[in-house]
Amino acid sequence: MIRMTGALLLSLAIALFTGPKLIKFLKKLHFGQTIYELGPAHQQKQGTPVMGGLMMAAGIVAASLLFHPAKWSGAWDYIFPLLAVSLLSMAVGFADDYIKAVKKRHEGLSPWQKIAGQVVVAVGFSVYCYFSPAVGSRIRIPFFDTEWDLGIFYIPLMSLLTIFIVNSSNLQDGLDGLLSTVTAVGASAWTVICVMLMLVPALASVTDPDGAQVTGTFMISVAGACVGFLRYNRYPAKTFMGDTGSMLLGGAMAACAMLLRLPILLLFIFFTPIMSSVSVILQRYYFKLTHGKRIFLMSPIHHHFEKKGYSETQIVSMYAGITLVLSLIAILSIC
Amino acid sequence: MIRMTGALLLSLAIALFTGPKLIKFLKKLHFGQTIYELGPAHQQKQGTPVMGGLMMAAGIVAASLLFHPAKWSGAWDYIFPLLAVSLLSMAVGFADDYIKAVKKRHEGLSPWQKIAGQVVVAVGFSVYCYFSPAVGSRIRIPFFDTEWDLGIFYIPLMSLLTIFIVNSSNLQDGLDGLLSTVTAVGASAWTVICVMLMLVPALASVTDPDGAQVTGTFMISVAGACVGFLRYNRYPAKTFMGDTGSMLLGGAMAACAMLLRLPILLLFIFFTPIMSSVSVILQRYYFKLTHGKRIFLMSPIHHHFEKKGYSETQIVSMYAGITLVLSLIAILSIC
Repeated sequence: MIRMTGALLLSLAIALFTGPKLIKFLKKLHFGQTIYELGPAHQQKQGTPVMGGLMMAAGIVAASLLFHPAKWSGAWDYIFPLLAVSLLSMAVGFADDYIKAVKKRHEGLSPWQKIAGQVVVAVGFSVYCYFSPAVGSRIRIPFFDTEWDLGIFYIPLMSLLTIFIVNSSNLQDGLDGLLSTVTAVGASAWTVICVMLMLVPALASVTDPDGAQVTGTFMISVAGACVGFLRYNRYPAKTFMGDTGSMLLGGAMAACAMLLRLPILLLFIFFTPIMSSVSVILQRYYFKLTHGKRIFLMSPIHHHFEKKGYSETQIVSMYAGITLVLSLIAILSIC
Repeated sequence: MIRMTGALLLSLAIALFTGPKLIKFLKKLHFGQTIYELGPAHQQKQGTPVMGGLMMAAGIVAASLLFHPAKWSGAWDYIFPLLAVSLLSMAVGFADDYIKAVKKRHEGLSPWQKIAGQVVVAVGFSVYCYFSPAVGSRIRIPFFDTEWDLGIFYIPLMSLLTIFIVNSSNLQDGLDGLLSTVTAVGASAWTVICVMLMLVPALASVTDPDGAQVTGTFMISVAGACVGFLRYNRYPAKTFMGDTGSMLLGGAMAACAMLLRLPILLLFIFFTPIMSSVSVILQRYYFKLTHGKRIFLMSPIHHHFEKKGYSETQIVSMYAGITLVLSLIAILSIC
């Protein structure tokens, strides 16, 4: 377990120490946020540097490469997809942020360009899992201690899931410290789940214990990076993670869940980002259906709460509490 | 594990639903906080009702009594001391709050009255543990996978520890949502540790697995109660937990750590409250030693950070991040 502790502290330290330099550098490049004109009164945030997510990526990559159990020959079967999905998802987000920053307008990549990039990553990863002897097409059903073989439908379903999770993560990232706090808690929950998969004999059939260790090392790096990043991202934020960061975190969450064959647990651990997506979808369909009525004052739903008079920090605290409670339930559900 | 999930949801629900009524009731009784004259500019908090901690107590008692594994004959060996230490510690805090509220001055019980009450609880509990076959005088040394027999010194050392932890908890409780957030994270960590003690065969020698289950059910109730209470305690707070609540939580933490024979883990999981105590002690001795110089602008150290210009919510986020990181290390240390 000394490796996992090392990974936690290293990714935390990298995020903490590269923070001030990265923020200075991004400011110099004028990579400031262009605030969406229709949002609640966040105009004072104009110019806050985005792409702060890069400091998390640095910590996660360094810590998970340095501290994974290198001696185990199968380690790359886990490390490679975890890093590939996270970093390629991040690349899509980075392209988006970069174009926004250079062109100085709210739109970055066109929606279709974004989706195309995400589809390539998601389908590639789902196919990889489907053919990997360590994963395959059978997912675990928590609470019921059973498995469900999705057969060939695994590929389209899990592709959709990955795209959905990455975009949910992206949509949640709209308030100072929101997504980083929620992901710090969620990644810690995944770490605990990995430790249990390693040590509890009754759970050995879920995932190879060595694979769980590699995944746990990766997820604890994510948790450490989020806590370090929060130092600069909490209200009032000195930097935003940007699509760069939110898609990185979404990719990491999806990759972990699928490799552990526990994608259903995302409904608990990543509930609040999923709620953000669902609120956007509901709002849009209701608007079309009723020709102009709205369910929420604004979507994603965290802006609805803002308009209702909750402060950013109140919403962050609420979402973190919900995530903590649901994460505990997720942990208990696999025992 | 369905019992622990039930305990979590019940204590959360009780704290959430009794909240508004309790706040109204306390306001009616004029049990408002009298803000310490020397503190940073918190005068606007004058009149915020204290003793909100009672809503946590209700949740914890109901959930841990209802959901503990009643069939196991040894359950009371755990439930009884957990509830006794928490509730008796709370009683001392309640007496303090009550006198403050009635007399409308900052001082409640005299320091000696408080300490006397705490000594009775702490010594009684340490003697109980010393003679209990389930606990005894041997404590676990995390990281080194070994034990240390304190012999008869167990009683004075653990009595001091309990008093120290209860007072640390009390000192930490000085900013909106601070202690409740930190304890929500810390109690979740203890819950995870209990689950591992139940399920990991290599850890069966630490604590009786059934005892770990009872303790885990209790601690998940504490976590749920803290999250529910946060709904009303986060900045800007509608109620404070008062000494009632902070001593309840401190007592719960100390009782759990000692019953699991892992008191050393309090240094990690309850680090920030301990830091509060240590900052007060350092400040006081340095002041005496130097005839008037100070290390911190103000102690406990969270007020130092406030004077340095950090907002309450920034400090809460920082302390929560530190607690999350150290809790993960604590969990890994016992594996």
